[in-house]
Order: sequence, then C-alpha cells, then structure tokens
Amino acid sequence: MPPSRARVTALDTYDIRFPTSRELDGSDAMNPDPDYSAAYVVLRTDAADGDEGHGFAFTIGRGNEVQVAAVEALRGQVVGRDVADLCADPGTLARDLTGDSQLRWLGPEKGVMHMAIGAVVNAAWDLAAKRAGKPLWRLLADADPAWLVEQVDFRYLSDALTPAEALDLLRRGRRGADERRTRLLERGFPAYTTSPGWLGYDDDKLARLAARAVADGFRQIKLKVGADLADDVRRCRVARAAVGPDIRMAIDANQRWDVGEAIAWTKALAEFDPYWIEEPTSPDDILGHAAIRRAVAPVKVATGEHVQNRIVFKQLLQAGAVDIVQLDAARVGGVNENLAVLLLAAKSGVPVCPHAGGVGLCELVQHLSMFDYVALSGTTDDRVIEYVDHLHEHFVDPVVVRDGHYTAPTAPGFSAALRPDSIERYTYPGGTFWAADLGAREGQAV
Amino acid sequence: MPPSRARVTALDTYDIRFPTSRELDGSDAMNPDPDYSAAYVVLRTDAADGDEGHGFAFTIGRGNEVQVAAVEALRGQVVGRDVADLCADPGTLARDLTGDSQLRWLGPEKGVMHMAIGAVVNAAWDLAAKRAGKPLWRLLADADPAWLVEQVDFRYLSDALTPAEALDLLRRGRRGADERRTRLLERGFPAYTTSPGWLGYDDDKLARLAARAVADGFRQIKLKVGADLADDVRRCRVARAAVGPDIRMAIDANQRWDVGEAIAWTKALAEFDPYWIEEPTSPDDILGHAAIRRAVAPVKVATGEHVQNRIVFKQLLQAGAVDIVQLDAARVGGVNENLAVLLLAAKSGVPVCPHAGGVGLCELVQHLSMFDYVALSGTTDDRVIEYVDHLHEHFVDPVVVRDGHYTAPTAPGFSAALRPDSIERYTYPGGTFWAADLGAREGQAV
Repeated sequence: MPPSRARVTALDTYDIRFPTSRELDGSDAMNPDPDYSAAYVVLRTDAADGDEGHGFAFTIGRGNEVQVAAVEALRGQVVGRDVADLCADPGTLARDLTGDSQLRWLGPEKGVMHMAIGAVVNAAWDLAAKRAGKPLWRLLADADPAWLVEQVDFRYLSDALTPAEALDLLRRGRRGADERRTRLLERGFPAYTTSPGWLGYDDDKLARLAARAVADGFRQIKLKVGADLADDVRRCRVARAAVGPDIRMAIDANQRWDVGEAIAWTKALAEFDPYWIEEPTSPDDILGHAAIRRAVAPVKVATGEHVQNRIVFKQLLQAGAVDIVQLDAARVGGVNENLAVLLLAAKSGVPVCPHAGGVGLCELVQHLSMFDYVALSGTTDDRVIEYVDHLHEHFVDPVVVRDGHYTAPTAPGFSAALRPDSIERYTYPGGTFWAADLGAREGQAV
Repeated sequence: MPPSRARVTALDTYDIRFPTSRELDGSDAMNPDPDYSAAYVVLRTDAADGDEGHGFAFTIGRGNEVQVAAVEALRGQVVGRDVADLCADPGTLARDLTGDSQLRWLGPEKGVMHMAIGAVVNAAWDLAAKRAGKPLWRLLADADPAWLVEQVDFRYLSDALTPAEALDLLRRGRRGADERRTRLLERGFPAYTTSPGWLGYDDDKLARLAARAVADGFRQIKLKVGADLADDVRRCRVARAAVGPDIRMAIDANQRWDVGEAIAWTKALAEFDPYWIEEPTSPDDILGHAAIRRAVAPVKVATGEHVQNRIVFKQLLQAGAVDIVQLDAARVGGVNENLAVLLLAAKSGVPVCPHAGGVGLCELVQHLSMFDYVALSGTTDDRVIEYVDHLHEHFVDPVVVRDGHYTAPTAPGFSAALRPDSIERYTYPGGTFWAADLGAREGQAV
C-alpha cells in the first residue's frame, strides 16, 4: 500500500489587534487612529514535516472580526486538499476560491471577501515555499516561466495582457537572473521610509526622524498630507530642509481629495519638489487619477494599496493614470493576482513600488519586489519598497533593513508567521493584553 | 419636563436563506445554483408608535453569515441614535457609517462592508417613510430639493456633478410632478421580466414563459446567455419566435466574458435583435465596457447590479461606457448613494433601468424608479424595472405587477419587511425549514 498523502487538516483563524492608536503611529488624513490588526490564518497539515501555511489580511481595527468571518467562510474549500497538489499549483486554489459562485456575489473580487481569499492563497504559498525549502521570492524567481503563467488568472485581462505575452516577459526577465540574485543577496532591495511623516507627529519629531532616515541610508521619505494645507506647507518645508534637495520626498493624501482639490493641493506643494503624490483621490477613480496625472506632472501619481484587483490595475495602466504601481500583498487575491499585477506593470514599463507597513506587509511584499527584480523587470531603478519600523518584533522572520535596503530573506516561506507569544498576547478580545486592558477599562467605568 | 425623545434601541440581524437552487430559478452563466438569501436587519425603537426600520443586503447563499457579521459591526454606530434626528436626516447616518475610519479600510465603499451600510441606511429610510406616513417614493418625490441635495455625499463626484447642478436637476424635475404622480398611481411603472430566460430552463419552458410574458403585458423580456454560444443562438431564436419582432429582448451575460469575447459573442447574437447586452464583462471594467459599447452598437450596453458605488457609476458615464444604468437598491450604500446615481444618470441623460429579482429587490427598487419618474427624469421612456416572479410571498407589502407595470405602493415605508412566519421558517440554520432539511440530510448521511 502506498503511504497516504498529506492533507490540509485545518484552517485556523485568529483575530489579532495591536493598540497602535495610542501612539498615533500610522495616523494620516483618512485614518486618524488605526489599531493595526490582522485576520490571521494558519493552514495545518498532517505532513510528516509538520509544515503549516501562514497568511493574513491586514485591517486597522474595528471590523477585523468581519474579516475573520470571511476567512472562515472559505474553510470548506480548503480543508481536505492534498498538500502536494496544493503546493504544486496554488493557482487552482486561487481560481476555486475566486470562482465560488455564491461567495463571488459578495464582491466580486473586492473588499472583505477578496482579502480573505488573499490571506488563504498567501498561506498556501507560504506552505509551498517552506516545502520547497526556499524563501518565496526565490521559489518564484527559480520557477519555470510557463508554470508561472499558469498561476495567473487572465480572466478580464486578455484585452491588455495575453498568456503568450506574459510568457515572453517572464522568459526575457530570466536573462541575467543569476547575476541579479547574487547582487540582491549582497545589497538587498532599496527601501523608503514613511516613519517620519505621520500626521500625528509634531514638527520637531518630523525633522528629527527625517534627518535620521537620511543618516540611516534611505534615499526617499514620505509625508502624510491632506488634512490642512497650511500645515502641509509647513511640514513639507520642515522635511525638505531636514533632508536636503537630493532626497526624494513623496507625499500621501490617503484618498482625501476630489479631483479638483487634488490638483490644486498638489500644485500648492510643488515648490517642495514632491516625487510622487500618493492616493490623491478614491482608489476606484481611474479616470480621476488620469486627470490628476495630466495636471500635476512632473509630480508623479501613485496608487494601489486600496486597489481592489487586477482589473482596476489594468485600467489604471490602460488610462495612463499612474506613474507608480503600489501593489499590496494582502489586499488582492494573493500571490497569483499580484503576479498578474507585476506582469501588467512590466508590460507597461511602469515601476512597482509596493505599499507596506501595517502588520506584516513589509514581511510579505519584499518577496514580490525581489522576484520582480531578479526575474521580471530586471531592475531596481526607481523601485523602492515602503518601510515602516513598527510591529516587526511580532514576526518569526522579521524584515531586516540595513543602510536603506531590505535584506533578502533566506528562511523558507513567505515570512508571514507571527510569534506564538504575540498571538497569545494580542488576540482580541481574549488575549492577555486585551483581557487586562478591557478589564481595566471596565474597572474605570464602574 | 419634556417627554424623553425616542431612540433606536436595537439593531437585530437575521440570516435568511431560501432554497432556490433546487428549482434552478435564478440560474445564469455565472451563478448556476443560487440560494437567494438576505442579511436582514431590523432597527427597533422605543417610539410610542412602535415603528421599526427594515432593510437587508441580498446574497446568494454561502457567505450570508459574513454579510450578517458586517451588519453587526455597525451596531455601535446606530443604537442610541435619536429617531427624529435620524429620520430628518438619514444622510448623516450614511456619512457616519461610510466614514468610520477603521471600517472604511475593509472597502472602502465596496463589497461586504458597503452592502452592510446599504442595509442599515435603507432600514433608516424605511423608518423615516413609515413615520412620515408615506411610501418611500412619495417621501422622496415630495421632499424639498435642497434637502434631497443634502442627502447626497458628493465626495469623489465633484468633477462630474456639483451640489448646485444637482439642485438644478431636482428643481427642474419637480415641474409637472403632480401630474406624473397621478399618472403613476393610475398606470404604474413599466416592468420587464426575466422569468422566462433562466439558463437552467429548457426550450419548451422558455418558449412557453416568453409567450406568457407578452400575454401578461410585458413589452420586454430578458434571456441569460454566455455559457455556450450554440445554445444561446438556439435559445435566442426560440425566444424571438415566441415574442415576435416588436417585443424588446435583452440578453444578460452576468460578467462571463473578456472584452474581445463579449464583442464577438454579442455580434453573433445580433441577428435576433437584442435590445441590450447586460454585464458583458467585469463590473469593474469601465474601459472594457466602453470598448464593448463602441463595437456592438446599435446593441446597447447595460450594467450596474454589481457596480460597487457612485464613483464607478460616475466613470461609466464619463467614459460613455453604458447606454443603461442598472442600479441596485441593496448593493451600494443605500438610498442616499442611489440618489447620487440617479442624479449622475439624469445629468447624462442616460436611462436608469434598475436590477431587481433576488430577495426583495423588486420591492425596494420600485420606489427609486418611481421617484425618478415623478420628480427627477420626468419620463418612463426607455425606462423599465426588472421583474422576477419569485419570493414576493414572503414580504408584508409585496410588489403588485399588473399588465406589465409595477403598481405604485401606497403603504408607508420602503416595502422591505419580511413576513414574521417567513423569518421563522427560513432563518439559517435554525429556522423550521432548515432545521428539518439539515436534519433530514444528516439522517440520510448516516
């Protein structure tokens, strides 16, 4: 009798919340008091090596329980799958989850349900990379281009990108990959930092952190803007003075403006030479971004962290609406859909500068940029990954940023695993931190 | 001491599911076996008259529990509100719910979380209309145009529609409203029927139901297409033969195609003179719809039942991507956002032909079309409301369709209330129907 094959035995979920609002870390014009949170998922298996797949959707507090419920709605589609088949072809899982006709109604391919799919699909990739003994970026960079093409769902993309074109891009991307991999392992991938620029920080803290960012080797910083123009003028002046003329300074409005306001406000800040204006308006407004881009050039237009799926990215590129694609590792339907986004960007020659920060987004997204550099776009020119220096201590394999660069991960997997003690402490509402905190508040209320 | 003011005392939710998949009612190319469901919400108050507000999000089965969880996430924002204030200004509730900075991350303004907001906001309008003693369409048609403008959230719309333009449209729409109201009460509002055209029906049933639709006074029917071209050619021929050349025959692909396929398939069916092609591709693909529309004219392009919010409707109109706007009463953020959609369409001169069917969508959406006719667009030319003849028996104030027209409702409210016995029977999984059904299946499984 052949040995029985390993299966996925459980899909466990955790409602993890960090009380970040208390320090105003992460404060911006749209999100004044986020509590960075994760709807965290573990795929357990009965494989002899005990491998598990970890993934998560990132939220900012309230509603994380809705996100957890959405992940749980996928359980029946995942538990029982053959582990070897799943790891050999995560694309089938991605297509099955996206294609569930009843769950599809809840999107389709957007919002809570789609982020849940992304969490589960990313967990499958984490499992696949662990079983391959490689960090995810390397699994992707070493993979057969034809297999990578099979991992992409071209539905609704074929007017902009065909499988044959994708194969061609990936084959061309493979030329010189060995050399780039060596260079990546030596130098890492360029980062920029948002840490100085949160809206809740005063000018002294902004100046101090901006200067420190330059001293730490970053060549780009980012400031949150959009709440008050006079404040923004002052803060941009403070930051520009702190970093000097040669450091790129991006600004980020977090969707605060309508189209006309975005144009006027960005022009009012142009004297400080902003490199890009990020999320000037609704992430759904493709034509709006195109109008803003035409009006504010040479300031570049960037968006993507809230772009719901590949179909909207396709149109942002078709409409010439963005100079920078800011994919997010945990907003769309996982690695498979982000492969589509990377391919669309590569075909258009538009640089991908991923969104990160939050809980574990830096940990995930570094893998996608490193794959893009080694085996697709082939360059780090004008490519930077966002870096925010909080909450990394909760991860088993945290990012390492040195001299303004992400160090390439070498541990097998997708760097998605939270530390068990962090899970125990920050599970909401029963974890040790929240139980004590909520208990103390009840005590005060009495 | 003045009497204390009435408050919202509870937000109760119900997971309601109907086993529609067993008859293939509602089967189409994307949704082969829907179980029409509702995440149903009741706002309870301590008002002396005992008035309640009812609303719901429509889903098609699995995941309805996620939708319920999303509605429950709004409870803290709703319970305790002053009933008189809420009814005098539902727009404040809509803005507060949409603007919750933490919940906003789960969209923004799309998918599960946004449909939950729509359910609650619609329940508030139901309450407001009941307390005004008017059916919702009449509350809206009688309202001061300036107040209606205040009910609209113009965020992300101002490049296409300003409050001043909206006020002008509403003031012009008011001319002749008394006469149109009288006519509406006499004749009703034109309907079309999808009942003959479900994909799961055989040709005999299609021909019989299509002929019956004409005999029943409908001037338009609709067929589901998109699964198999040869089948579609045959079914369109059968239906066209059954209804004759003078009845409009729409076709509906339920997002099944990519852009190129949509164009080719629609052209292949052009000989049967389809009036519109509905949902030819992804509802997110504004530029795709524009390309399809250019290619398939004079066949019209219609979409909207899955369009997530006013921002995407804005762009569909800006891009000249649609001939018909198919708003849905329970997909976007409720009456307030649908006022924005009606105004955008009115400004563009594009007819609104709402999506209906499902659970209670006919009941809700008739109010919006009737308001549009009486006090905004001022015409029923080329305007029809979808009609599907199932599940109405579960509603307290079901639609009445006579001679191909929706009869104007006269009972106060938004016609959203389910019958108590239907709630008791179809609550999932504990209602009497499901408890017996699931119990029987367990018995079989043993």
